[in-house]
Amino acid sequence: MRHRILGIDPGSRTTGFGVIDTDGSRSVRIAGGCIRVAQLPWPQRLRRLFDGIAQVAAEYRPRELAVEQLIFARDVTAALKLGQARGAVLCAVLGEDIQVHEYSPKAVKLAVVGTGGAEKAQVQHMVRLLLSLPETPPEDEADALALALCHAHSLGIPARRRAAASWRDFRP
Amino acid sequence: MRHRILGIDPGSRTTGFGVIDTDGSRSVRIAGGCIRVAQLPWPQRLRRLFDGIAQVAAEYRPRELAVEQLIFARDVTAALKLGQARGAVLCAVLGEDIQVHEYSPKAVKLAVVGTGGAEKAQVQHMVRLLLSLPETPPEDEADALALALCHAHSLGIPARRRAAASWRDFRP
Repeated sequence: MRHRILGIDPGSRTTGFGVIDTDGSRSVRIAGGCIRVAQLPWPQRLRRLFDGIAQVAAEYRPRELAVEQLIFARDVTAALKLGQARGAVLCAVLGEDIQVHEYSPKAVKLAVVGTGGAEKAQVQHMVRLLLSLPETPPEDEADALALALCHAHSLGIPARRRAAASWRDFRP
Repeated sequence: MRHRILGIDPGSRTTGFGVIDTDGSRSVRIAGGCIRVAQLPWPQRLRRLFDGIAQVAAEYRPRELAVEQLIFARDVTAALKLGQARGAVLCAVLGEDIQVHEYSPKAVKLAVVGTGGAEKAQVQHMVRLLLSLPETPPEDEADALALALCHAHSLGIPARRRAAASWRDFRP
């Protein structure tokens, strides 16, 4: 059975997203990208994030969402901003018939890199390898794809595809 | 010119809202209430808040929104929850043609009670008096109406209506 998973890495400046299909033997990247809103005034940032993710959800119709567990932030100010971004993003998909799955940063790194203490660059590298991408995805997109791969892994589906097979790569 | 103002006091357990009309000589409560979501699982809370406020915005069509400036929270965990609730609520109205105005808690208390260090109960009492309500509104609704009154006040419009005149009071 094919699973279409949307991974989202919410941020108040840049939000990464990634859509993968996984069929039990391989995972392929269907779409991915970053929504950059740092230049917008504050309330509009949230609506732009909301609209952007709603558009991704409408276009690719994922039935499973993987997001990072939100358990810490640098400080209260950062937490208030990150929280608002996450609220906007979750509202954009929760209207759809979608299951929400949360993973800790450590669980994601463990699933994708094999060690819970992996660096950002290692995550980017492994996401590229696992999805046989022609180039390394930007950090926020890589984090979102890693979340989706982590969820694929948790389904008991081999998310790690060693050989480069046919795969689609269109960016919205 | 009539101003229709929506005040919102976002919270991850209860979100208060209040709609007032102000025409330069008096302010009247058009609607108000609380959206209670504490019993819902986390992601659904956000969508319920979003849907509830979107419904209020669609029904009463305010053109001005007054919300509290979000500058502090008890701790990072509280800030992450409060931030998500605020993000959900803002996304629900930002799609509309609406101006967003933020006020500090101190500014709201100063405008409504006359002192920046007022207690919650004083705010509730003054909101009741200023809008000639038959009973004291619940705390979260009173905070939302106080935000709306604070914005009315900032427009240079006398928000304080001493005499009880005709006014509408239908609760959605």
